[in-house]
Amino acid sequence: MELLSKTIREINGLDEESMRLARQRSDNLIKPPGSLGALEEAVVKLAGIYREPIPSPGEKVVMVMAGDHGVVAEGVSAFPQEVTPQMVMGFLNGQAGINVLSRHAGAKVVITDVGMASPPIEHPGLNNCRVKNGTDNMAQGPAMSREEAAQAIEVGIRLVQEQIDQGARMVATGDMGIGNTTPSTAILAAISGIPVEEITGRGTGLDDRGLKLKQEVIKKALALNKPDPQDGLDVLAKVGGLEIGALAGVVLGAAARRIPVVIDGLISGAAALIAKTIAPQSVDYMLPSHLSQEPGHKLVLQQLGLKPLLHLDMRLGEGTGAAIAFMVFDAAMKCHAQMPTFAEAGVTNKE
Amino acid sequence: MELLSKTIREINGLDEESMRLARQRSDNLIKPPGSLGALEEAVVKLAGIYREPIPSPGEKVVMVMAGDHGVVAEGVSAFPQEVTPQMVMGFLNGQAGINVLSRHAGAKVVITDVGMASPPIEHPGLNNCRVKNGTDNMAQGPAMSREEAAQAIEVGIRLVQEQIDQGARMVATGDMGIGNTTPSTAILAAISGIPVEEITGRGTGLDDRGLKLKQEVIKKALALNKPDPQDGLDVLAKVGGLEIGALAGVVLGAAARRIPVVIDGLISGAAALIAKTIAPQSVDYMLPSHLSQEPGHKLVLQQLGLKPLLHLDMRLGEGTGAAIAFMVFDAAMKCHAQMPTFAEAGVTNKE
Repeated sequence: MELLSKTIREINGLDEESMRLARQRSDNLIKPPGSLGALEEAVVKLAGIYREPIPSPGEKVVMVMAGDHGVVAEGVSAFPQEVTPQMVMGFLNGQAGINVLSRHAGAKVVITDVGMASPPIEHPGLNNCRVKNGTDNMAQGPAMSREEAAQAIEVGIRLVQEQIDQGARMVATGDMGIGNTTPSTAILAAISGIPVEEITGRGTGLDDRGLKLKQEVIKKALALNKPDPQDGLDVLAKVGGLEIGALAGVVLGAAARRIPVVIDGLISGAAALIAKTIAPQSVDYMLPSHLSQEPGHKLVLQQLGLKPLLHLDMRLGEGTGAAIAFMVFDAAMKCHAQMPTFAEAGVTNKE
Repeated sequence: MELLSKTIREINGLDEESMRLARQRSDNLIKPPGSLGALEEAVVKLAGIYREPIPSPGEKVVMVMAGDHGVVAEGVSAFPQEVTPQMVMGFLNGQAGINVLSRHAGAKVVITDVGMASPPIEHPGLNNCRVKNGTDNMAQGPAMSREEAAQAIEVGIRLVQEQIDQGARMVATGDMGIGNTTPSTAILAAISGIPVEEITGRGTGLDDRGLKLKQEVIKKALALNKPDPQDGLDVLAKVGGLEIGALAGVVLGAAARRIPVVIDGLISGAAALIAKTIAPQSVDYMLPSHLSQEPGHKLVLQQLGLKPLLHLDMRLGEGTGAAIAFMVFDAAMKCHAQMPTFAEAGVTNKE
């Protein structure tokens, strides 16, 4: 757990002076102050992250973490577990939603097996960082040990920092793992205390009976494992997932290096919640993306203090909402850098 | 009014068969059906517009219409009228928000003077299509004659169809005109019957006293001119604006040629409402973009049946929200065209 401890210590706050200068510039560009709304807010945050009053777009990377979940044995997913490695093959072949959207946004996709249940895939494009062959069934006991949870987080820290060393300026979280809305919902319930019924959704397409079953399974897992809401590593180990842990690591690893992380949907949000519980200041480095169809997602975002920019009713995961948001953040930085001030443009300012 | 009458007659419905085929394809791509949410809905609509089950992105153009408003004499704007031509110069110099965002989205900006109050600007990049030197003060009488309103609409029809002839596949509406949230709000109140107090916003930055005054002015203009809510041309003439008329023309002209129009904020929404009143089927060709900070915008979108994709709290106009939405629609079409089906990719479908 040395890398994790070191990373937590490295996370510092935003640079207030760069934020002040960014705000000052933004208020003087040729537009009514505040009229670019969330774009202006994002730029100010990015200025504070990068320590640059005029931040500029750079290399973007979606970190897709894949893992499997023992809890699927309870019948909580509409799709079978074999789809996890099949979709990972789709990512490696550049065919899936996240590939198309990342190409569109000019972003790279980095794919990692943190713990699928299938035989390992040998492919030059895949990082094999398997902590174990899928989690254990959290309805029967903890999903993994505390040590394994820390290992999963450290996979994310290591891989995101590798990308940052290679030039990544903005990263996003993406997930693949059949059944992973179940642990994500359990994490949200454990940390927020919100009743399971209010936040459990249909995932990839459960019917009413499936939804009811999923709620029962989550409640059983929470009652059995009793995760400590103050201890992110405990929550992750008892009712989390390996890819969720790795995504929490992506958040922590990026925050330690002052690189912003765009948070995708419910699974990514649950990972961000783990990161926040472990290192509260990491929320300063999180950027919002979309609001998913999953009912729990809105509440995850509230817990993180993030206001979603895109209302697209998506629920695909993979980082797809975050990839679209990349384009909005680039747009925000371009407006801030390229628009002249009233004085520069010779436009009369508000009286 | 011959061009307007001809254009209205040319507007037909969506192609149901292409929509059915698009929906069928979308349901079989490697993702849970419906999981791309609004992206899937947009593609189905675009299929119906283009009559193509797999529509593809193409040339994008933002039609920015500029005009001035006699009603600014009542003190309804935080910025002085001279800013209209100054901002148009900013557009022509490629410096403004809409220029930056259009470059980012790969779109062209077409700028037209439909009726500014200033001396005309001679610039090769500007279409001089002035119907009159700004509208008259609607708090004293009609903003313009019925004939002038029709002329403004025909400017929009003519110019958008020129762009379509040159290859535009998707267009967006953008506006510039100091004071133009006042006529836009009046149009919404006239057509919807919603009380003025509920829909009047601060525009570019009115204080409380300014907001109250603006409400009084709008109520006075409506009481004095009594626009007929069933007659879009009457509403436009009595309480509208020249750039608003031209934008209604953009919607009608594009719909007649089966080209989708992305609707920007409050002013564009008011123009779209005029277009809908004149030719109800034109709504089939409208695509949503963002939800603006202006309180009336939400209600305009409800009247149009459009669900905004971007919640960015913007209120800049110029077409800025629509330009960002261009990237979302391109993303939607790329997913639909480039993702394989479950069978093609060898991924196991839902049981």
